[in-house]
Amino acid sequence: MLDIEQQMALIKRGAAEIIDEGELRKKLSRGTPLRVKVGFDPTAPDLHLGHTVIMQKMRHFQDLGHTVIFLIGDFTGRIGDPSGRSETRPPLTEEQVNANAETYKKQLFKILDPEKTIVEFNSHWLGKMDAADFIRLASSYTVARIMERDDFSKRFRENTPIAIHEFLYPLCQGYDSVALKTDVEMGGTDQKFNLLVGRNLQSHYGMEPQCILTVPLLVGLDGVRKMSKSYKNYIGIDEAPSQIFGKTMSVSDDLMWTYYELLSAKSMEEIASLKASVADGSLHPKKAKEELAHEFVCRFHGQKAADEAQADFNAVFANGGVPQDAPEGTCESGEKSDPVSILADFGLAKSRSEARRKIAEGGFYIDGTQCKDDKTPLAPGSYVIRFGKKKFLKLTVR
Amino acid sequence: MLDIEQQMALIKRGAAEIIDEGELRKKLSRGTPLRVKVGFDPTAPDLHLGHTVIMQKMRHFQDLGHTVIFLIGDFTGRIGDPSGRSETRPPLTEEQVNANAETYKKQLFKILDPEKTIVEFNSHWLGKMDAADFIRLASSYTVARIMERDDFSKRFRENTPIAIHEFLYPLCQGYDSVALKTDVEMGGTDQKFNLLVGRNLQSHYGMEPQCILTVPLLVGLDGVRKMSKSYKNYIGIDEAPSQIFGKTMSVSDDLMWTYYELLSAKSMEEIASLKASVADGSLHPKKAKEELAHEFVCRFHGQKAADEAQADFNAVFANGGVPQDAPEGTCESGEKSDPVSILADFGLAKSRSEARRKIAEGGFYIDGTQCKDDKTPLAPGSYVIRFGKKKFLKLTVR
Repeated sequence: MLDIEQQMALIKRGAAEIIDEGELRKKLSRGTPLRVKVGFDPTAPDLHLGHTVIMQKMRHFQDLGHTVIFLIGDFTGRIGDPSGRSETRPPLTEEQVNANAETYKKQLFKILDPEKTIVEFNSHWLGKMDAADFIRLASSYTVARIMERDDFSKRFRENTPIAIHEFLYPLCQGYDSVALKTDVEMGGTDQKFNLLVGRNLQSHYGMEPQCILTVPLLVGLDGVRKMSKSYKNYIGIDEAPSQIFGKTMSVSDDLMWTYYELLSAKSMEEIASLKASVADGSLHPKKAKEELAHEFVCRFHGQKAADEAQADFNAVFANGGVPQDAPEGTCESGEKSDPVSILADFGLAKSRSEARRKIAEGGFYIDGTQCKDDKTPLAPGSYVIRFGKKKFLKLTVR
Repeated sequence: MLDIEQQMALIKRGAAEIIDEGELRKKLSRGTPLRVKVGFDPTAPDLHLGHTVIMQKMRHFQDLGHTVIFLIGDFTGRIGDPSGRSETRPPLTEEQVNANAETYKKQLFKILDPEKTIVEFNSHWLGKMDAADFIRLASSYTVARIMERDDFSKRFRENTPIAIHEFLYPLCQGYDSVALKTDVEMGGTDQKFNLLVGRNLQSHYGMEPQCILTVPLLVGLDGVRKMSKSYKNYIGIDEAPSQIFGKTMSVSDDLMWTYYELLSAKSMEEIASLKASVADGSLHPKKAKEELAHEFVCRFHGQKAADEAQADFNAVFANGGVPQDAPEGTCESGEKSDPVSILADFGLAKSRSEARRKIAEGGFYIDGTQCKDDKTPLAPGSYVIRFGKKKFLKLTVR
């Protein structure tokens, strides 16, 4: 194992908060592998890069020789929200939970080493508890402490109903740390409260409390909001190689460095060196971005697909019949990123009706491929638009 | 069965509150026996008359032909207060619960007809629930509604810890009404909130909600505070006949009528007639009190013991060597009701030291019995005190 300072450097990379560092150093100093838990909600996973920030952090611990526990929260998932207040938490069947867990695992093991990963389901211990055990668990925490959670105190103040079982779910999650005897639990910054519950419950049950480590929520392609399917500012890890490559190329230079820190397998030294080369002008930022885009495609689709995506991207953008002086344009993904709007707004067509007509006639191409759909907005990414034979636009949709 | 108005008259006798009367009339109008539940905490019962107010009310329903359910809350009793915050709720073993239940039953069946009483233990259904069932139960109630309970809102405001399982206990109690399909639940006024939880949960589970009926907390012998062992203002139902008789004789005339309403088996018509006789002077209030005292002793010790207690009381007070002109006195039970204080304060002894010396010599009698204990305060009741051969005091300790 590396010495404590070297380990801490990697552990702290991109971390939002560690509670607390002194305790973590003490745990590391014992020289035995730590048990590092991350819980995943077993609702249908539709994973994007935002979900992989925590997986990278799991990988770091794995690289340092620690034991990573991938915990599926199937117990609560199979109960869902019995009050029926939340439509996003329907109860799941055992089959659904297992199918979702498989999807998670498939993606997770593109980043983690399956041989070194423990997969657990919390129904194994929570499902065995009876009502009396549950009351004992509930007795270990106070109402005031649970109400400290921001969303609870806000809802209570605003008289928005909180069903009592919602108080029990953080205790279930916290009890997982007791059952698994974890040394470290990790999650997004939005999970901080729940992670602390585990820490407190372990103390209550007479164990050394776990350290907690939070990672930031990843900013999406727009550079503003967190990456989310509903904001359409995401890179889905199941997307086609050209999509992943193109979307990565569309991020700002600033955001590129954040992605490097949080998502790249490159060491911080390598990243610092790239950054220096860009700063002194010896490397064009576009080249640094291509390297990152290549890494992402490589991770999710393999080396060959990554090489091809990069070649295609450059063929379209750098040569291959596109005039050097083709105009460039940028628009927001959404209402204005549909073919008709693009052609009209950037002046390739004289009017929306001309745009519509010529698309129907087959005179509209995206990245060299004919497109007869004049309605569907283009997702964020970089495209070469061709209208008729001679009109080109290098378009970046943010 | 009696008609609804006659039934309601008996049901309302001494009741503090009924929620709600219209619904109760509707339930009665169906002509089928109602299921009337009263829950008892299975902690060591040390029963006094205060506990029998609710038993009288159970008797009323039984007399009207309804089904009375005597529910032992053994499920929660066997868990106790697992947070360890309340010393009054230690977890009980199955043996302790059963022993306490037997004690309750023995006393209860001095008032109720065992043949018409259903005895239930709530562990029969709550003990079978698993953690998932429990979460579903918890989902049926909101934090805000539970916080409406006075003691919870007060403790939350004052930052006194409330352990989360305390929120679950009212739900357990409420669920009992679901499991038992009760039509009416009764309890002391301090139980109103918990009774309403049962009402709400029944609605949640798609049942017709139970009506609730509360009875007042019985005022103790001092006429001020609620009857309680810790205030020493109680009549224990296991006390000796002479104690029960004497203590009853010590209550004020006003309180006597409250006791008649809440505790006597006499009808309200009979009580009204007694009251009228006292009012027109044809009956001395002392005689009305003797009738009540006789009824109490008869209930807990039988007819013979009651007759003897009454005869003894009158022998001591009315004749039997006690001078007609013996002085009368009254004092509060407590610091001033020990033998030395009584003898000194009422002037029977010249000084506390003389009192102490003569008690030691055997010259001190209570109700004709020699007493050498000069320290233990006298409990509330009526006594004839003799000091030496000739000094008497008719003493009432309140």
